[in-house]
Amino acid sequence: MFEKCLNLLNERGVSIDDIVYCVEYLQKGHDNSTHDEMYDAVVNVLKKREVQHAIMTGIFMDKATEKKIIDDEELLQILESDYSLYGVDEVLAYGICNLYGSIALTNFGYIDKDKPLIIKELNEKKAGVCNTFLDDIVGAIAASAASRIAHGERHL
Amino acid sequence: MFEKCLNLLNERGVSIDDIVYCVEYLQKGHDNSTHDEMYDAVVNVLKKREVQHAIMTGIFMDKATEKKIIDDEELLQILESDYSLYGVDEVLAYGICNLYGSIALTNFGYIDKDKPLIIKELNEKKAGVCNTFLDDIVGAIAASAASRIAHGERHL
Amino acid sequence: MFEKCLNLLNERGVSIDDIVYCVEYLQKGHDNSTHDEMYDAVVNVLKKREVQHAIMTGIFMDKATEKKIIDDEELLQILESDYSLYGVDEVLAYGICNLYGSIALTNFGYIDKDKPLIIKELNEKKAGVCNTFLDDIVGAIAASAASRIAHGERHL
Amino acid sequence: MFEKCLNLLNERGVSIDDIVYCVEYLQKGHDNSTHDEMYDAVVNVLKKREVQHAIMTGIFMDKATEKKIIDDEELLQILESDYSLYGVDEVLAYGICNLYGSIALTNFGYIDKDKPLIIKELNEKKAGVCNTFLDDIVGAIAASAASRIAHGERHL
Repeated sequence: MFEKCLNLLNERGVSIDDIVYCVEYLQKGHDNSTHDEMYDAVVNVLKKREVQHAIMTGIFMDKATEKKIIDDEELLQILESDYSLYGVDEVLAYGICNLYGSIALTNFGYIDKDKPLIIKELNEKKAGVCNTFLDDIVGAIAASAASRIAHGERHL
Repeated sequence: MFEKCLNLLNERGVSIDDIVYCVEYLQKGHDNSTHDEMYDAVVNVLKKREVQHAIMTGIFMDKATEKKIIDDEELLQILESDYSLYGVDEVLAYGICNLYGSIALTNFGYIDKDKPLIIKELNEKKAGVCNTFLDDIVGAIAASAASRIAHGERHL
Repeated sequence: MFEKCLNLLNERGVSIDDIVYCVEYLQKGHDNSTHDEMYDAVVNVLKKREVQHAIMTGIFMDKATEKKIIDDEELLQILESDYSLYGVDEVLAYGICNLYGSIALTNFGYIDKDKPLIIKELNEKKAGVCNTFLDDIVGAIAASAASRIAHGERHL
Repeated sequence: MFEKCLNLLNERGVSIDDIVYCVEYLQKGHDNSTHDEMYDAVVNVLKKREVQHAIMTGIFMDKATEKKIIDDEELLQILESDYSLYGVDEVLAYGICNLYGSIALTNFGYIDKDKPLIIKELNEKKAGVCNTFLDDIVGAIAASAASRIAHGERHL
C-alpha cells in the first residue's frame, strides 16, 4: 500500500522531496537534521496504515470533485471552492497528526495558515483541479514527520 | 442544509427517532430527560454546520461505494467490507464528538462497541448496501446529543 | 523515566498485569494474543514519552487532591468527588489514546463506561483516596495497548 | 465559576482585552468584526464549563510549580523549564479548541508557533514565574473565539 500511496501522491503532483522541504521549513532554526534524515521521517509516516487510508480517501474525494461525480450539488460546490468552513479535510489531517502527538498538531496549524512551498501550489485555484483534501494531508504528513524528528525518533 | 441532511439520513434508513432511541440507551439510569428533550438535543446537533458536512461527506462515500465508482480497488474493498482497521470513518465521527466534549467521545466509544438499535441494523451486511461511514456518524450524533444533555444544555 | 512511571503506578496500586487484564478484557473474542504479547504491548505504551508525562501529571494531581494542597476549594471538591462533568482527566486520557489511532479511542470509551477490573477498583470511593486521573490514565494505556495489538504491532 | 476564572486570569496577568488582541491578530485581514464583537466571543468561550475546568487546572499546575510543591523532581524541572516535549499543556489546550472545531485547532497551532502579544509575554522566562500551562490556555481561548467568529456565531 506504501507504493500505491507514493504513486497517488506523485500523480497529484507531490513528491516525497516536496514534503521534505515542508519539514525543513518547519524545523528551520530548531534542528540540524540532514535532508536524508527528514526524508526517512517522511517515509516512515507514509508507511503508517492510518496515514495511507487518509491519503487514499482524500485523493479519491479530490478526484471525485474534479470528475463531478458528486451528485450532491451543495457538497460539490463546497469541495470545488475549498470552502473555508468545511472542516472535514482538516479533520482527516488531524486524524494523521494526532498519531504523532501535540507537536504535530501545532506544526499543522502553523503550516496550514502559512501555506509554504508545495502547500501553496496545491492551494492555487486552477480550473478543473481540486486539492481540497490533498493540501491538508500533505501538511499533516510534514507536520507529523517534523514531530517525529523533534521527539528524536527520526530513524525509527 | 438541515432539511437536506434530514432527507439524506431518511433516504439511508435513519430517522431522528432512531437516533433518539440511541440517546435513551446511553442515558439509561443516568437521566430522566423526556423523549421530547432528547429529540430537541438531537435536532440541535443536526443543526451544527460541521455535523452537516460530516453527514454529507460520509453518506457520499457510502453511496459511492455502493455504486462502485471508487476506482481504487483496495479502497473499494476496505469500504465494502467495513474493514476494522480503516479508521477514517471513526475519524469523521470524532470530528463530531470533539465539538461536544469528552463525554461525547466516551459515549461514542461505548455505543460503537455495543452497537445497539439502529447502529446494529446499519452494521448488518446486506448485498449492495454500504453504511461504513453512516453507522459511525449516527453513533457520533447520538453520543453528542447525550453529552449535551449531561451538560444540562438540552434546550439550547 | 520508564522505571519511575512503573514505580508511580505501583505505589498507586496498579501493576502492569492489572493493565494487561484490561487488555485481555478488551480483546476477548477478537484476538488470540498471549498474555506475554499483551504484556509487551503495555510495556511498549508505557515507554512512550507523552504517556509518561501524562502519568506523572495525573498522579501528581491525584496526590495533591489527597493532600488537600489544592487551594482552589471548587477544584478540590471537583477532584475529590470525581465530578462527572470535569473533563480534564478524560482529555489527558485522550492525549494518550490519540497516539494509537481511532481504535484506541473507541476502546477507551468502552472501558470507561464499563469499568472492569482494576478500573472498577480505582473508581471505588475510599476516604482520603483520589484516583480521578489515574482510572482514566490506566484505561487509556489498556485501550492503546489493545489498539497496537489490533494493528498487528504487538512486538514493536 | 465564570467570575472566579476571570479573577484567576487577572491574578496571573491576563485580561479579557489581552485575549481579544490575540483574536484580532488571528482575524487580521479575514474579518471586520469590531472589538466589542470579539470581546463577546471571548466572554462566551470563558463561560463554557470545560474551558473553566481547564483554566482552573492549568493555573493550579503553574502555581504548584512556582511554589515547588511538586515533589516529583523530574516533573518539576519539566514544568519550570516549559520543556518543549512535555505536551500535556498542549493536550489541555486542544481539549478547549476541539469544542470549537477544526478552525480553532488551526488557529491555535499558528498562535502557538508565532507567540504574539500576551502569549509572548507569558513565555518570557522570569525567575520564580511559571506559565507553562497558561500560555497555551490563553492561546486556545483566543483560537476558539476566532473560530466562533469565523463560523458567524459571534453573538451566541
